[in-house]
Amino acid sequence: MRGGEFRRHGHALVDWIAEYLEHPERYPVLPRVKPGDVRRALPSAAPEQAEDFEAVFDDFERVLLPALTHWNHPGFFGYFATSSNPAAILAEFLAAALNQQAMLWRTSPAATELEAVSLDWLRQLVGLPDTFEGVIYDTASISTLHGLAAAREAAVTAVREDGLAARAGIPPLAIYCSEQAHSSVEKAVILLGFGQRSLRRIPVDEEFALRIDILEHTIERDLADGVLPVAVVATIGTTSTTSSDPVQAIAAVCARHGIWLHVDAAYAGVAAMLPECQPHFAGWEHADSIVFNPHKWLFVPVDLSAFYCRRMDVVRQAFSLVPDYLQSPHGGSDVRNLMDTGIQLGRRFRALKLWMTLRDLGAEGIRDVLTRHMDLARRFAGWIDAHADFERVAPVPFSVVCFRAHPRGIDDQQALDRLNERLLDEVNASGEVFLSHTRLRGAFVVRLAIGHLQTTDVHVSRAWELLQQTLDRCSQSVLPR
Amino acid sequence: MRGGEFRRHGHALVDWIAEYLEHPERYPVLPRVKPGDVRRALPSAAPEQAEDFEAVFDDFERVLLPALTHWNHPGFFGYFATSSNPAAILAEFLAAALNQQAMLWRTSPAATELEAVSLDWLRQLVGLPDTFEGVIYDTASISTLHGLAAAREAAVTAVREDGLAARAGIPPLAIYCSEQAHSSVEKAVILLGFGQRSLRRIPVDEEFALRIDILEHTIERDLADGVLPVAVVATIGTTSTTSSDPVQAIAAVCARHGIWLHVDAAYAGVAAMLPECQPHFAGWEHADSIVFNPHKWLFVPVDLSAFYCRRMDVVRQAFSLVPDYLQSPHGGSDVRNLMDTGIQLGRRFRALKLWMTLRDLGAEGIRDVLTRHMDLARRFAGWIDAHADFERVAPVPFSVVCFRAHPRGIDDQQALDRLNERLLDEVNASGEVFLSHTRLRGAFVVRLAIGHLQTTDVHVSRAWELLQQTLDRCSQSVLPR
Repeated sequence: MRGGEFRRHGHALVDWIAEYLEHPERYPVLPRVKPGDVRRALPSAAPEQAEDFEAVFDDFERVLLPALTHWNHPGFFGYFATSSNPAAILAEFLAAALNQQAMLWRTSPAATELEAVSLDWLRQLVGLPDTFEGVIYDTASISTLHGLAAAREAAVTAVREDGLAARAGIPPLAIYCSEQAHSSVEKAVILLGFGQRSLRRIPVDEEFALRIDILEHTIERDLADGVLPVAVVATIGTTSTTSSDPVQAIAAVCARHGIWLHVDAAYAGVAAMLPECQPHFAGWEHADSIVFNPHKWLFVPVDLSAFYCRRMDVVRQAFSLVPDYLQSPHGGSDVRNLMDTGIQLGRRFRALKLWMTLRDLGAEGIRDVLTRHMDLARRFAGWIDAHADFERVAPVPFSVVCFRAHPRGIDDQQALDRLNERLLDEVNASGEVFLSHTRLRGAFVVRLAIGHLQTTDVHVSRAWELLQQTLDRCSQSVLPR
Repeated sequence: MRGGEFRRHGHALVDWIAEYLEHPERYPVLPRVKPGDVRRALPSAAPEQAEDFEAVFDDFERVLLPALTHWNHPGFFGYFATSSNPAAILAEFLAAALNQQAMLWRTSPAATELEAVSLDWLRQLVGLPDTFEGVIYDTASISTLHGLAAAREAAVTAVREDGLAARAGIPPLAIYCSEQAHSSVEKAVILLGFGQRSLRRIPVDEEFALRIDILEHTIERDLADGVLPVAVVATIGTTSTTSSDPVQAIAAVCARHGIWLHVDAAYAGVAAMLPECQPHFAGWEHADSIVFNPHKWLFVPVDLSAFYCRRMDVVRQAFSLVPDYLQSPHGGSDVRNLMDTGIQLGRRFRALKLWMTLRDLGAEGIRDVLTRHMDLARRFAGWIDAHADFERVAPVPFSVVCFRAHPRGIDDQQALDRLNERLLDEVNASGEVFLSHTRLRGAFVVRLAIGHLQTTDVHVSRAWELLQQTLDRCSQSVLPR
């Protein structure tokens, strides 16, 4: 594709994307394809000759478009609903064209410094003190991995040099999180060589928050047994129910025993911008490291995870390695090289979309959207609470509602699970909305997560209407009579 | 930004990017800014009110543009020169708008299956057998991390459950690579808990390739000492000189001892498409895992790293974890969920740009560019060889030339280092070209890396002209007389 062609195809694509963003409800949220459909519709080998972009784009529309899950649909209520503000889409376009690789300051002063600037803005917005330094990673999985790697570096003498295997003097290690913590904690524990058995999954209370008494007791028992506590991962806004652990109390326990505290606020972190949400975040300023994802609830396209650390020197100590070919003439102490802050050498220009988003929406605009989402969630929760055949199964501190159908007089748990699975499948088959599920105390539970910029009461009302209509239909066929 | 505004700003941005791509030489390759310039030019806090995109873009042009390192400049000869084909820039734009999160098949059937399809095309192009399954990660650092994590899973019984610390029966572990292997190998060794001391950096021969005799001897000595060899990392196309290790012989050693073989071909891997390069790749089909980066020499914007594995079941075994909220109704054996293949749960739609690139350029088009780059490198190497005051310090198997100024009669190594550092600084200060450096056998060495789609003999000739002119000037001031 030559320059002139880029212009032509670029303009056509802008129009296509504008149409797509203006009519996000044109497509079913969940695509109606079967596994293998895409694969079978495409050639089995790359073309030998160059092809016209029109032909490629035709195939995109013919084969790929019907196989997209429309995360952009305002009826997307699954997992954590995400959406991108249009300015950030343009930022990604620009970033792809500029193709910065910000491993060193000198390989992109703009990307390196804009990352510091935009993370500093974000830090202030969520009310963290300036003792926290930030870095952008791709995903919360990688952020949490770095938090726990730093914890290991801080806790285990000479782990960088000597590792963990076959060493005298390393006691058994332990990491603590709640039963409701994200799977990325366990993956990091595996990767870092701790092993799953070192992960203590602390039970939760009736509101799905970590039981501080059990945490304390478990740590004390471990200490008595000669186990070395490496880190506690506290969650603000768990994935299933958006419950929050008692961070203030956990921080006190960590401080008493000198244990690294990592806070996983991947979804809920941005809500720290709202005064009404402050109680959930009490104490997070005592964490050693914190992650939250602007690509979740800050309207930035995937991927962009913000990692803040009070002890970034430990992260650097764990990972900094400068080979001859990357020694920089400007490698003095006044320069920060992003490659020193983590496992990935290559860094694309992710800060651009964060910076453009913060400016395009403004702090006030962001707070307004978050407030609106939380209002919608509370309204939906109210409908659930008022309906005799539905029940809410968790508090609604942010913008996610966990509930299930529970028709009067039915107490067979297996029948209820079957009913709710069927209900969810049929509602999702409508193509108008998509909700996902989880399990709480063994029961199948439906989740409605609000997070899309364009979601309004119309979409939430429609979800509620579909749920009620579908329940009427399903009850008759699924439930024992 | 509303829909109509997106259209307007999008069209303006297409024109801006088209201009930028059509006149890549308008800006100096290395920016003329000092550390802190960008930071000081921007406000210290996010705006409270939303701002117009024009204002944001004005600041981009005023503050950020002068602080970009222009990887897109055809005079960019540093590190590994990379560039993006215009179709892939459009693909990234589209991917940002679609905002797919392909953790599960159901969350993006299109992204999940297109990843398999495009990696299968690429596998065929580089001549790997279909026993290799592929997955896309962000960087080679992460790919190599997964290769070594799988090696650990294969070598150390129950490492996922029990970890490495405080376990009876785990012998000391060892990983092998050459002195010239990339720093990402060492970072992965640290992260996985092996420790730097477990990394055996095997010396290289006069062409910077791993000494197979020393590797064999080291492994045998380790075995005799009760050390467990976990993996060998062989490099095809090292970062300093693009030398290649004797993969065929290494594979035989690995097979004999049952050691995982990971091949790091991050830069050179795509050159396996060229018949003339086949000798460098002999034996790589015996590797257990292989990485190469389409964002390096396949004209895809950062980030996109292709990881191929003959034993992807081991990678899944190491990492697969499915929490309740991600249990999928289509989780049967016919569906591949990308989140099972690695540490990152979130996966953006990277396959789109790879697929569009392969179609836009065609296999023939890609081979033509690679051949042209290698021809240019050889031509430049010829000029170096023919000049009495320059010397080439490594073979040129691909598209990188390592050389230094070595004026007749000067043999003081420190003076030569100073001369070459000065030469490099002054040539780079021209703004017309950017070359980077490395150290080989202790000496400061200049590298000229060719990899940009638009680089022609004009740019390479200009680099040569600048080098000669600058040497004349520098010699007088730097060298002892």
